[in-house]
Amino acid sequence: MVDITDMNVVLDEVRDALTAEDWDRAVALVEALRPPDQADVFEELHPDSQSELLPRLNPEDSADILEELSDEDAIEIAARLEADDLTRIVNEMEPDEVADLLGDMTPDQAAETLSSIEDADEILPLLEYSDDTAGGLMTSAEVVLHKDITTAEAIAHLKTTVPEAGIAYYLYVVNDDMRLVGVVSLLEIIVAPSETCIDEIMNPEVISVFANTDQEATARLMARYDLLALPVVDEKYQLLGVITHDDMVAVLEEEETEDIFRLGGVPDERVSTTVAPGIALRARLPWLVLNMGTAMLSAVVLSLFEETIAQLAVLAVFFPIVAGVSGSAGTQTLTVTVRGLALGEVSPRDGIGMLTREIMIGLANGIVLGMLIAVIALVWKGSPILGFVVGLATFINLIAAGFAGVLVPLGMSIIKLDPALASPVLVSTLTDTLGYLIYLSIATILLLRFI
Amino acid sequence: MVDITDMNVVLDEVRDALTAEDWDRAVALVEALRPPDQADVFEELHPDSQSELLPRLNPEDSADILEELSDEDAIEIAARLEADDLTRIVNEMEPDEVADLLGDMTPDQAAETLSSIEDADEILPLLEYSDDTAGGLMTSAEVVLHKDITTAEAIAHLKTTVPEAGIAYYLYVVNDDMRLVGVVSLLEIIVAPSETCIDEIMNPEVISVFANTDQEATARLMARYDLLALPVVDEKYQLLGVITHDDMVAVLEEEETEDIFRLGGVPDERVSTTVAPGIALRARLPWLVLNMGTAMLSAVVLSLFEETIAQLAVLAVFFPIVAGVSGSAGTQTLTVTVRGLALGEVSPRDGIGMLTREIMIGLANGIVLGMLIAVIALVWKGSPILGFVVGLATFINLIAAGFAGVLVPLGMSIIKLDPALASPVLVSTLTDTLGYLIYLSIATILLLRFI
Repeated sequence: MVDITDMNVVLDEVRDALTAEDWDRAVALVEALRPPDQADVFEELHPDSQSELLPRLNPEDSADILEELSDEDAIEIAARLEADDLTRIVNEMEPDEVADLLGDMTPDQAAETLSSIEDADEILPLLEYSDDTAGGLMTSAEVVLHKDITTAEAIAHLKTTVPEAGIAYYLYVVNDDMRLVGVVSLLEIIVAPSETCIDEIMNPEVISVFANTDQEATARLMARYDLLALPVVDEKYQLLGVITHDDMVAVLEEEETEDIFRLGGVPDERVSTTVAPGIALRARLPWLVLNMGTAMLSAVVLSLFEETIAQLAVLAVFFPIVAGVSGSAGTQTLTVTVRGLALGEVSPRDGIGMLTREIMIGLANGIVLGMLIAVIALVWKGSPILGFVVGLATFINLIAAGFAGVLVPLGMSIIKLDPALASPVLVSTLTDTLGYLIYLSIATILLLRFI
Repeated sequence: MVDITDMNVVLDEVRDALTAEDWDRAVALVEALRPPDQADVFEELHPDSQSELLPRLNPEDSADILEELSDEDAIEIAARLEADDLTRIVNEMEPDEVADLLGDMTPDQAAETLSSIEDADEILPLLEYSDDTAGGLMTSAEVVLHKDITTAEAIAHLKTTVPEAGIAYYLYVVNDDMRLVGVVSLLEIIVAPSETCIDEIMNPEVISVFANTDQEATARLMARYDLLALPVVDEKYQLLGVITHDDMVAVLEEEETEDIFRLGGVPDERVSTTVAPGIALRARLPWLVLNMGTAMLSAVVLSLFEETIAQLAVLAVFFPIVAGVSGSAGTQTLTVTVRGLALGEVSPRDGIGMLTREIMIGLANGIVLGMLIAVIALVWKGSPILGFVVGLATFINLIAAGFAGVLVPLGMSIIKLDPALASPVLVSTLTDTLGYLIYLSIATILLLRFI
């Protein structure tokens, strides 16, 4: 059991050491930590301290820190390092992480850095692919086995290559044309008799993806089939690289955060609790302006009924209920639908079934909540007709919310837009505007005639 | 590259085979699929077909299907199987999955099933732990190495034990007291000279958790330190079992879904797009009733100002903007705060910083949106004072939304409630009720005096 040390304590100690210019102690404190903890402590330090400290750490630790930092932080720190310090560190980084870093640099800086990297030929091919594709996630495969070698030869090959421990739980098998033909686990190699041909023990049904596959689809494939690594191939099925398990976890987390943020009206996943207020504002304000625009639709509807409201102000008292409850019901349906689409539990072709289901739920919600609010309005304001109007409007609105909550995200999905992005604002616009329209239309027809 | 076959095509073929009572063909079709696909096809079949088909599949495939199905589906199908068919299948399941299944059975059924299982002694200890803890996730460790054996002995041991390929990428090392003292990867064993003692190549800094650790904390620990497996120990640090990578992915997905659902007002994560409408209704309706209750608070506030509204019905026209925009801003702040807390990016002790940040954003939002709506109201309704009232109310409400969006989830987190659960309804209640109160108070004071 390793204690998960309180990073704030370590951080204070590192700061004290830096203030005292006791580099050895600062280095010792940071090197004793695991990479994610090193990065957490490191990113809290003053930029000047960062530039002083990083070249003094051993290059493996510095490389781990650069890998763990956010892309923005990593590029900023890399820009402040001396060229030869940067080269030493970059030489210890994983090829896919180097490619990401180079992709974020200015062309000049990237070219200079690349020219001094030992494994430049491994990294160059990785630069071709966009960050959000399988190609952008993959790293170069360190160990590839030919299908006709024996297990003893495979083990001998492993002993000379000594890949990083984290990478070689699956070994990919290729034929003479370098086409991917199978996968074999280390364990299968060990337990087989030593003269067994790899061909005989490998699993030929290896799952792979093309380099241009979307990163979310790639990560979900790995999660679904419980893969610790996934090979990436070109159109001839030649092996281009391998995506490792840590990338899958990072992509899933990134996509979940994106969905949560989009559903919450923050349409930019880079806006976390840690970015500067100015950046957060630029991401969020346009969304609020859009929201104000859609709220104006409701305001226009209300404006049409100004006379009704003037004659019977008590109608306005029930606005929060008419709009609020159907808005909440629409959000519930929307949330379930968007999540079902994201996890692949439902697809647009299940549309009729989902719609039927949500309308049934809307009907039941409408009966219960419509009657409830009718009774409240009757008792509170002493008007049976007011009760009837509020109850009927709530009933109709809840059914409309079921429609909107299914049809909007499904429609988005069919036209290939992310349902999490545009749906919340559309659904709330629909439930609000329709809600006011239905409520005040019924009121105008009935109330003004009978009261 | 294995094609991801269209499961609907396979499903139709399986159904045809079942209708023709061509069991061999149905079995061949299902056995050709990968486990998650087998389960997908299987769960679409009629219950009678399921009971007919499952005992005819080979027990390994049947076991995989039971493991992949949801807990509810698995228990339902298990209940319909003959006792000896069930035993044959359960004997092929992973110990942790058997423990989960037994935990969901009636005590009688569980006792009967357990009595006929080969590895009952492996499964019994797993039954002690609650499903949502590390103990509930772990499976029994198949291979444990003593620290004083050599790598050659370790390999010989692996050859006789032949663990499941998926489990043995890390091997845990214990001392004479069975205390966990290190971890070694298969690769490290292979590449070391054959007479090396395990003790010399193992990593003694092995991360482990206690059996009662919460499942989300466990999964986040595995994700953070990029662990493919995590050992679970008792208070003497003796090895109890191992949590595998597939459990981490499943737990993270379950927790994300829970957060998304809770933020969307669906406070029960079991309510997916696939449950029956009745169950969905029972989960969602109480939440809507609660929502109606909180909307009543706004209605009460509005009721206090009925006279103001009666005198100036145009005030009601701007209700959707006053309540809607600050509600959206509150949701944005809430979303960012809840996600930051879930990912561990922020903790309650960062409260002051977060609050300052969100109030600054609220101020900026308020200035822009307040001025915008003031101009709209002025131009549309031709009243400078109305413009001033709507603008000022929007400005104040947006600052209040910043306060509510930070303080509510932080407060929840401090009193150990899930911030995702109760915060949305509290924040929207606050922004709505405060919004109407501020708007109509300003209006009553200013407008009625000057118009």
